[in-house]
Amino acid sequence: MELKNNVDDEYFESYFDLSVHELMLKDKPRTLSYKFAIELNSIDFKDKVVIDVGAGTGILSMFAAKAGAKKVYAVEGSLMATYCQMLVDSNGFSETIKVIHKRMEDITNEIEDEKVDIIISEWMGFYLFHESMLESVLYARDRYLKPKSGIMFPSRADLFLAPVNLDSYMNKKVNFWNDVYGFDFSVLANPAFESLPAPLVEHLEKDQLVLKEKTILQVDFNTVKIKELEDIIIDKIDFVFPSDKKPKEIHGFCIWFSCYFDGSKKTIELSTAPGAPETHWKQTTILMPQGIQLEGGETMTCRLQMKQDEENRRRYELNFEFPDDE
Amino acid sequence: MELKNNVDDEYFESYFDLSVHELMLKDKPRTLSYKFAIELNSIDFKDKVVIDVGAGTGILSMFAAKAGAKKVYAVEGSLMATYCQMLVDSNGFSETIKVIHKRMEDITNEIEDEKVDIIISEWMGFYLFHESMLESVLYARDRYLKPKSGIMFPSRADLFLAPVNLDSYMNKKVNFWNDVYGFDFSVLANPAFESLPAPLVEHLEKDQLVLKEKTILQVDFNTVKIKELEDIIIDKIDFVFPSDKKPKEIHGFCIWFSCYFDGSKKTIELSTAPGAPETHWKQTTILMPQGIQLEGGETMTCRLQMKQDEENRRRYELNFEFPDDE
Repeated sequence: MELKNNVDDEYFESYFDLSVHELMLKDKPRTLSYKFAIELNSIDFKDKVVIDVGAGTGILSMFAAKAGAKKVYAVEGSLMATYCQMLVDSNGFSETIKVIHKRMEDITNEIEDEKVDIIISEWMGFYLFHESMLESVLYARDRYLKPKSGIMFPSRADLFLAPVNLDSYMNKKVNFWNDVYGFDFSVLANPAFESLPAPLVEHLEKDQLVLKEKTILQVDFNTVKIKELEDIIIDKIDFVFPSDKKPKEIHGFCIWFSCYFDGSKKTIELSTAPGAPETHWKQTTILMPQGIQLEGGETMTCRLQMKQDEENRRRYELNFEFPDDE
Repeated sequence: MELKNNVDDEYFESYFDLSVHELMLKDKPRTLSYKFAIELNSIDFKDKVVIDVGAGTGILSMFAAKAGAKKVYAVEGSLMATYCQMLVDSNGFSETIKVIHKRMEDITNEIEDEKVDIIISEWMGFYLFHESMLESVLYARDRYLKPKSGIMFPSRADLFLAPVNLDSYMNKKVNFWNDVYGFDFSVLANPAFESLPAPLVEHLEKDQLVLKEKTILQVDFNTVKIKELEDIIIDKIDFVFPSDKKPKEIHGFCIWFSCYFDGSKKTIELSTAPGAPETHWKQTTILMPQGIQLEGGETMTCRLQMKQDEENRRRYELNFEFPDDE
């Protein structure tokens, strides 16, 4: 294992924290998606060479090794690489899994194969892009993956958007101040609303969606270029409120993603939708400073921009607008 | 209201955060104890002068004003004093409640009464003493409270200790690593245990207590001196394990407190015990690096030291020993 330590920034430090890995391992929809995607498509892994980008404890590398991979490069930039090596050894995978304690981009000759068959990675952030390590995964793809036959796990993702009503949440967080043990604390409702995290990362229930979601973006990780993800603009997302519906208040717009693992045998979906089994990604909701009253028959046109932060490229900024509106 | 801002340290900054006050207000056993203690003993408040030390949003001051107090000094060192003033005004208490934006110890002539009848304060920290503001309350008592007739709310507290078995918690946090999706991650069990917070602040269930608690300390806030609380040593706490009991493993020792409001009409207890309605204080558990097997008939003798940190007097350090043991 490489012990050269050029892994100094906050991002990598945050992953040298067992409780973060505990949280992610205990996120069953997440971890089981990878397990099933790899197990049920073991035909794709048998005798193949794999890179695991951001291996963490090495769980995905072990799934791949168990599925019959000939060689797995477990690339981990944080100090978790030390634990990863211990786990690889104690589980008898020392022959198959090579732990590389480096950032993906810093690898020189540690990956001995010129090209590999599969890249696996759990790189996804909030609303897919925020605090993610997609760039490192695409770097690995462009540098190491076999051009035609190579497989990306996950292979694709969809991004969804839906207007939401958060009455129950607002009652708990904002309207609570209206009656505090018999006193009127409502002067605090505005400061309380303003101190809510923006955007809000919370689990929503399906019945909090006012209208069915729109698929606003589809990304193919086999082909997408880093450049295309720097400034994602989705113009004219139309939500039509049926004319037979009673007026309803909208407090914001909820974003979430699904990832797909396209194996030769089976496609596995990892959904982070409201109503799906809860994941640590929850859903991301952009709150409106003022609620919007939607009337039957109305069409609401929105525009969403997801812009990569220039200083910290792992971060995205969300801009949400109603372009038709004044 | 005083706006002179000499409130610069972290402690006071942390209380200029609405979510902290939301948490405390939503802690019903806490807030309702004060409400009932004041309401049911309104005879003690009628036409009296009150100081509320660390008033926060001013909720306790309003309870006191509503119970008939003639004057309430709501002393608040953090910027919450601004909100407190807004709430006092919007609830029509501007005549009765005087908000003083200062630390208790910095007050010069803002308290116009030479002596007051009652001091109320929610000053309690974890296991009563840790991160508390008891010193400011005792300062207020010694400087402002009428010597004989004066009332302290809360008036007394008891501290309890009991040995606990944390099998369910350990399973979740430590034994989890024994089987992670079919792999043996047990090399992480030790690092995981070592990364648990020490001491552990968690809600325990009553059935996690292996033996009935001992009352290890009783404090009377009418008389206790600050000096007496600098280095609290409780020698020889004996736990006798009945001879007819099956051997049981002990993972640590749990500490909690009850506070009592001794009014003329009624004494109200605020309990933070395992099994009592949950409060934000939870319970504090000192974990043993190794579990202890207790046999029937055995007596276990412990010694607990709670020592005030010299640099940060709000903090206490817990030292737990078995003096008879090697």
